Amino acid sequence: MQIYPSDDGNAAFVRLDRGTDMLQGLNEAAAKLGVEAGTVQAIGAVTELVIGYFDQDRKEYRTTALPSSFEIGSGIGNVSLKDGKPFVHLHVVATGPDGAAIGGHLMEGTKIYVIEAYFRQLGGEPPVRAQNEDIGLATWR
Amino acid sequence: MQIYPSDDGNAAFVRLDRGTDMLQGLNEAAAKLGVEAGTVQAIGAVTELVIGYFDQDRKEYRTTALPSSFEIGSGIGNVSLKDGKPFVHLHVVATGPDGAAIGGHLMEGTKIYVIEAYFRQLGGEPPVRAQNEDIGLATWR
Amino acid sequence: MQIYPSDDGNAAFVRLDRGTDMLQGLNEAAAKLGVEAGTVQAIGAVTELVIGYFDQDRKEYRTTALPSSFEIGSGIGNVSLKDGKPFVHLHVVATGPDGAAIGGHLMEGTKIYVIEAYFRQLGGEPPVRAQNEDIGLATWR
Repeated sequence: MQIYPSDDGNAAFVRLDRGTDMLQGLNEAAAKLGVEAGTVQAIGAVTELVIGYFDQDRKEYRTTALPSSFEIGSGIGNVSLKDGKPFVHLHVVATGPDGAAIGGHLMEGTKIYVIEAYFRQLGGEPPVRAQNEDIGLATWR
Repeated sequence: MQIYPSDDGNAAFVRLDRGTDMLQGLNEAAAKLGVEAGTVQAIGAVTELVIGYFDQDRKEYRTTALPSSFEIGSGIGNVSLKDGKPFVHLHVVATGPDGAAIGGHLMEGTKIYVIEAYFRQLGGEPPVRAQNEDIGLATWR
Repeated sequence: MQIYPSDDGNAAFVRLDRGTDMLQGLNEAAAKLGVEAGTVQAIGAVTELVIGYFDQDRKEYRTTALPSSFEIGSGIGNVSLKDGKPFVHLHVVATGPDGAAIGGHLMEGTKIYVIEAYFRQLGGEPPVRAQNEDIGLATWR
């Protein structure tokens, strides 16, 4: 991981390295940067993609694992607190050789080819995630 | 609507609630936050999706309404002034159960399951939208 | 090109005009704004789309050129230094008349209908791109 911080410590670019799990890498970057509340953006490419779709009726994720290479056309999301720790929530849209787009909630198992990420601190009280029975997910309370 | 502001008042996270119209909810958030010029990002999920494609020849939107659940893979856009009021312009890419992506200009009628949005003020003179005859849309003048 | 700067000079909205090459227009905007390190977001519409997918085995881009109109559902990326000059790296997801999404690395040849872009300075030492033999691309060193 290579970090390119802003002078005021409120933002940073981060290069995540080949072979790293994308979600784990982003969570490690958030922890290293001390971001408890912030926005995240990422582009790049991966060698494997694992995405989730939340089934609102069954209240569980359906996971799609694709063991092939994709561009990360967009990765956007946020850092907030879950169980007292910085937690990255990122949605991605990935694109294949002919440009066809597929995406969802970024899951563990997505392997990086190269990722360029951007973090910016909110600079305020972090939202805190707690299980929301109506939604079936840990939403900001 | 739950707001998580930055200490300097220049940014905020916003949780929009289930059942809210996504575009109306974002416009209400911009008004409540006092954002007349700013950037917006959103991820989450919806129970209905209404998107537009601008037909550049006929100079009118074609609307696609999909009465089913999607992840919001990305929502990005801006706030500027239109008719003297804060106006959110957001494009979304939504993803379905198998990850297939569909998107366009966010239209009214999109119903929220849960949305996490981020606003950041430009901190400068707001762009103002006015009808542009060449384009057929209200662009920044 | 129309620029709407923040008062502190750290951010700006930019309207890029019809007929402009999207990648060239963003690079010109970065140069004009003096952004050597920053984040970029863009939405709008194009009349032609040229996107790339990096073939990780052959270490070369496969290019797809589509001579038709699309919404730019998302454009996100960054500005850093390459060969001593500001260099925009942007990934786009574009959507067609029925909403179908296609995307990848933004290539020259993409022609603007109207684009609303946002730049924000990192406010720190710019990442510098250099050829990375392992990856086959000019990554941040």
